[in-house]
Amino acid sequence: MEEKHEDFMREAIGLSVENVMNQGGPFGAVIVKDGKVIATGVNRVTGNNDPTAHAEVMAIRAAAQKLNDYNLSGCTIYTSCEPCPMCLSAIYWARIDEIYFGNTKLDAKNIGFDDSFIYDEIEKPIEERKVKAHQILHNEALEGFKKWKNFEGKVEY
Amino acid sequence: MEEKHEDFMREAIGLSVENVMNQGGPFGAVIVKDGKVIATGVNRVTGNNDPTAHAEVMAIRAAAQKLNDYNLSGCTIYTSCEPCPMCLSAIYWARIDEIYFGNTKLDAKNIGFDDSFIYDEIEKPIEERKVKAHQILHNEALEGFKKWKNFEGKVEY
Repeated sequence: MEEKHEDFMREAIGLSVENVMNQGGPFGAVIVKDGKVIATGVNRVTGNNDPTAHAEVMAIRAAAQKLNDYNLSGCTIYTSCEPCPMCLSAIYWARIDEIYFGNTKLDAKNIGFDDSFIYDEIEKPIEERKVKAHQILHNEALEGFKKWKNFEGKVEY
Repeated sequence: MEEKHEDFMREAIGLSVENVMNQGGPFGAVIVKDGKVIATGVNRVTGNNDPTAHAEVMAIRAAAQKLNDYNLSGCTIYTSCEPCPMCLSAIYWARIDEIYFGNTKLDAKNIGFDDSFIYDEIEKPIEERKVKAHQILHNEALEGFKKWKNFEGKVEY
């Protein structure tokens, strides 16, 4: 089984290496279900002008399309680099079971991708973060939540 | 100016309310640049089978397409609910200047959207998180990073 994990990781690493020559950052990911690769992703931030187009997010979107399900439980993600907080959260929202990664966030920082800055920011109380956040119109905003709570036809997730 | 902020927030709230009847969670966001709404987003997780399709992520993707730029500095996001860690990280990656929000993550938790669980998980050391993460093939993974470091044609971001 160890070998299988290495095969899938080698595929993710291969994607990360190829992607450097293809208008993308050096990041690749594959998603595996029942021993088979069901989707892959590479970093397309600058290539597609999409700041959310990290390899893991791209792979998650593709896997969800493939399975026709936003819930990817039963899946494992192999990513050439430890997920940034956006991708880690996406992995949680997608309910992926397990993560294999190659490079660390420190390696990423060393080549100019500063995920650790965002990890640090998230842990701070809201009023100490660099990007200022202001709460307004709380009572009006609650209307949407009340409507959701009372709506019988909702698809909970 | 305070009124302007309220107008934009009301637009985000309006989207969140409408979205409940349209196969989506009660979340809406608008992105503003130079005093004008340039993009909007609503939660499409179940509607589109995309676990990353939160309102803020959808609005960020749309704004980046509109501006033809992954860098949204100079923009403000108005979101009907305090961003989850995925969306907050996306806001950082997109370099959005400022955030206005209506509901809090506690309100979200109260109607079944448990962002706080993910906030808690992110803060834990990797080995204590619920989703297990394993590092393998570190040396091979570094190849992509070396290639990036040495590639003169790269678009850094």
